[in-house]
Amino acid sequence: MATLKDVAAECGLTVTTVSRVLNNRGYISDETRKKVFAAMEKLNYKPNEVARSLSKKTTNTIGVIVPHIRHPYFADMISNIENAASKEGYKIILCNTKGRNNKEKEYLDMCTSNRVAGIILFSASVAVQEFTDSKIPLVTVERFVENGTAAVECDNREGGELAAKHLIDRGCKHLLMISGVTESSMPADDRAIGFEDVCKKNDVTYRIVSTSIGQYNSLDYHELLQDALQMDERIDGIFTSSDLIASQVLQVCTKIGRRVPEDLKLIGFDDVMISQITNPPISTIHQPIKEMAEAAVDMVIAASKGKTVPKRTLLPVSLVIREST
Amino acid sequence: MATLKDVAAECGLTVTTVSRVLNNRGYISDETRKKVFAAMEKLNYKPNEVARSLSKKTTNTIGVIVPHIRHPYFADMISNIENAASKEGYKIILCNTKGRNNKEKEYLDMCTSNRVAGIILFSASVAVQEFTDSKIPLVTVERFVENGTAAVECDNREGGELAAKHLIDRGCKHLLMISGVTESSMPADDRAIGFEDVCKKNDVTYRIVSTSIGQYNSLDYHELLQDALQMDERIDGIFTSSDLIASQVLQVCTKIGRRVPEDLKLIGFDDVMISQITNPPISTIHQPIKEMAEAAVDMVIAASKGKTVPKRTLLPVSLVIREST
Repeated sequence: MATLKDVAAECGLTVTTVSRVLNNRGYISDETRKKVFAAMEKLNYKPNEVARSLSKKTTNTIGVIVPHIRHPYFADMISNIENAASKEGYKIILCNTKGRNNKEKEYLDMCTSNRVAGIILFSASVAVQEFTDSKIPLVTVERFVENGTAAVECDNREGGELAAKHLIDRGCKHLLMISGVTESSMPADDRAIGFEDVCKKNDVTYRIVSTSIGQYNSLDYHELLQDALQMDERIDGIFTSSDLIASQVLQVCTKIGRRVPEDLKLIGFDDVMISQITNPPISTIHQPIKEMAEAAVDMVIAASKGKTVPKRTLLPVSLVIREST
Repeated sequence: MATLKDVAAECGLTVTTVSRVLNNRGYISDETRKKVFAAMEKLNYKPNEVARSLSKKTTNTIGVIVPHIRHPYFADMISNIENAASKEGYKIILCNTKGRNNKEKEYLDMCTSNRVAGIILFSASVAVQEFTDSKIPLVTVERFVENGTAAVECDNREGGELAAKHLIDRGCKHLLMISGVTESSMPADDRAIGFEDVCKKNDVTYRIVSTSIGQYNSLDYHELLQDALQMDERIDGIFTSSDLIASQVLQVCTKIGRRVPEDLKLIGFDDVMISQITNPPISTIHQPIKEMAEAAVDMVIAASKGKTVPKRTLLPVSLVIREST
């Protein structure tokens, strides 16, 4: 691969001059500039970002740590983060913990060793406490941690309220919510609080069922859903904490002979592609995924440049009505 | 952040000795080693991978360039690649071209500048021709390019044959295939060849419809599907070049009042999560995504170490029967 030296030799200039052109430093005549770029083009020279990063003591890289890539919510988030980062000239290193805490710690260390400009984290275990010593900005999405740099969240409580109100508006009397994982603090917990509030104020019965970490990791909720629906045949409205779970409700209903929306109204959460391609398409609570991704990227870059960023940012959610209600 | 110097000062040793412990070079007594590790722990020292990469002239990073992240096939691929890379101590930089050729070129340059160990590419425009000068191994998945280091593919032709045979076995007489993008060379082209071969040998009518780059980029095929199905009401079997398109067939069928599988049998391609969560679940051609991802990662790492790798690797596909046929 051509080096800076090769470029200098090709155009008959010193390495220092070529370096000044590359870094746009000091006075350089147009003629010199043209000469250098022509030589770079001819030799197919690519500047060594590794060397530049070492002298700048940081990289234009953002570490993105997620518990899932295949999950449509995270796939959508990652896509939006990559897009926002790319626009700002940053690249992303993608890390998948699959919910394992030791993997999270390992990835945090890896990001530190690679001198990332900052980290966007979609889960938060004990390792995070330890991590913040490293002075690398840490932006969490859908998780608030005391010692993080910033947290970007959507209004989960409002989302739970909207979902319950909508089911009740549609005439449901016996509600079921499939919530977060028992063992962990999850955004679904706030959704459950909002859901419960509305149920209590109205003349409906309700039940909130937690899921297990095993189900969250495997993304398979069929058994849980079938048990919950068959345990109480009066259930006529169901709110799930993700569109992915909602899509599995549709399958279980077909299996046990319940029609959506005739016998049972269904509303999900997230508003990812999956909610539009099921049959019937699923009503859901829209998370502003694009805006959350952009906010996280903006904040991690700003913080890496020493700017002060808001500790918590709460973005609004909204109700999307489709055929399942 | 603590430096090597700080660690040396903390344990009262020279930087050279500490560096030898870190790199496991030369004779070091157990006592010295313990002292160094204790100091590193105390100061929360993280080795600077950027400096190590500069001296090694490469990084333990793989560039992964995809045309989509939200598409369930690519989300699944990315997840498997991250997993395989992580096991080998490599990290991935994820790049999303959204089908734009200029973005592909930009990402190839960025990967080169960042001295990645190798690149795994899921699309291939003219830029690839230019790229291979750089001596960085380039493994393509589902695209064969003459000047690439290696290509990993699944047996697309066999997949098309299996799909056509299955529809004919189920009694279909008038088949429709939704194929790849008109303007580009796509893996779906080989699937169409296999499909056509089987149709010709059997007593069935068939039509192959290409999609547009706009549809591929937006992932929205509803209009195309409705037009194709309404143009010929005899159609009783449909093969789509992805499960994503197949899921949209289900929606269009509901809209125009055709029942799957009673009026129309449907088979997709890929065997990603989406084919299991629709209603009914979709029969499909299984791509060995995990094995393809692992092969791509193994090859890119082997090639970066100067090993010879196979130019083309073709992995088998298989038929998965679900309720849509």
